[in-house]
Amino acid sequence: MKLLKERILQDGKCFEGGILKVDSFINHQMDPTLMKAIAVEFVRRFASERFNKVMTIEASGIAPAIMVGFLLDLPVIFAKKKKPKTMEHMLSARVFSFTKEREYDICLSRDFLTPGDRVLFIDDFLANGNAALGAIELIDQAGAQLAGMGFIIEKAFQQGGGILRDRGIHIESLAMIDSLDNCRIHIRD
Amino acid sequence: MKLLKERILQDGKCFEGGILKVDSFINHQMDPTLMKAIAVEFVRRFASERFNKVMTIEASGIAPAIMVGFLLDLPVIFAKKKKPKTMEHMLSARVFSFTKEREYDICLSRDFLTPGDRVLFIDDFLANGNAALGAIELIDQAGAQLAGMGFIIEKAFQQGGGILRDRGIHIESLAMIDSLDNCRIHIRD
Repeated sequence: MKLLKERILQDGKCFEGGILKVDSFINHQMDPTLMKAIAVEFVRRFASERFNKVMTIEASGIAPAIMVGFLLDLPVIFAKKKKPKTMEHMLSARVFSFTKEREYDICLSRDFLTPGDRVLFIDDFLANGNAALGAIELIDQAGAQLAGMGFIIEKAFQQGGGILRDRGIHIESLAMIDSLDNCRIHIRD
Repeated sequence: MKLLKERILQDGKCFEGGILKVDSFINHQMDPTLMKAIAVEFVRRFASERFNKVMTIEASGIAPAIMVGFLLDLPVIFAKKKKPKTMEHMLSARVFSFTKEREYDICLSRDFLTPGDRVLFIDDFLANGNAALGAIELIDQAGAQLAGMGFIIEKAFQQGGGILRDRGIHIESLAMIDSLDNCRIHIRD
């Protein structure tokens, strides 16, 4: 997706240790018009899949997910990163974050993810794939089906993309970062 | 806003202690088409105000805020509820949540809220007003101006609305809940 790649090269910031910050337009300050263009691209890339629900994880997945849901008039659910007081009717999975060096739980009410559901999962980043695997665990627990997973940015030099594609999941990443070595952003053409 | 009021009466759930759950269409599962209609109504109600940025707090404020930003082609910023590792360039305010009975910090990068900004704040709920007061503190710290505050649902029997209106702030709430006594939802006409 040309517009997104150009924007990452223009406004993305690269730091030591493979860190890419896109917080001026994706995950702290957000450009809603870019977000809509991103959603249109997801709709196009998953045109061959059947799904009735869009799913994401709070917080930075919500903006692209709600835009996809709006374009397709489908409900959007987001997994929460904190266990609520009452866990009745809750699906829950543990996720290890390499970025934050800690474990957290993602939770979703069973009321909103049921055996009949076919889910398109949307998130901002795919890196080690741990959050995505947690989302798949929630979908499995619910007895629902995963139709595909769309990411705005994939760090292709990390393992998540490989793990998910090896499972035969339809993965679409709108920008593939091949390397952040020497604090330079290399995006796949 | 008639559509919203009808939806709250139809799908909202009321529990002991003044708790209103709208998590089947606003803050866990979201109806993007309703969210767009909500955003259109905010645009209409703040038509007389000048602002260049939409602000919210993660996570449930993001969906209505991004829709408002999309309609007006304005950047959207969301305050984070966790202090990041590095606090340089960070605005921060402490918020006490009555619902969760604990304090938390909301943070926002100084890069994205500056003295020239005029901000429209959007959130899902106004109850005690503590989160809104935290947002105002961030805006003050940045030297920015607040143009108005829009809430999807106001619990009019709690103090937040009074506190904010007494400060002379332009407040718009799309549904005013007058009472949740005896687990019945009373919405103002």
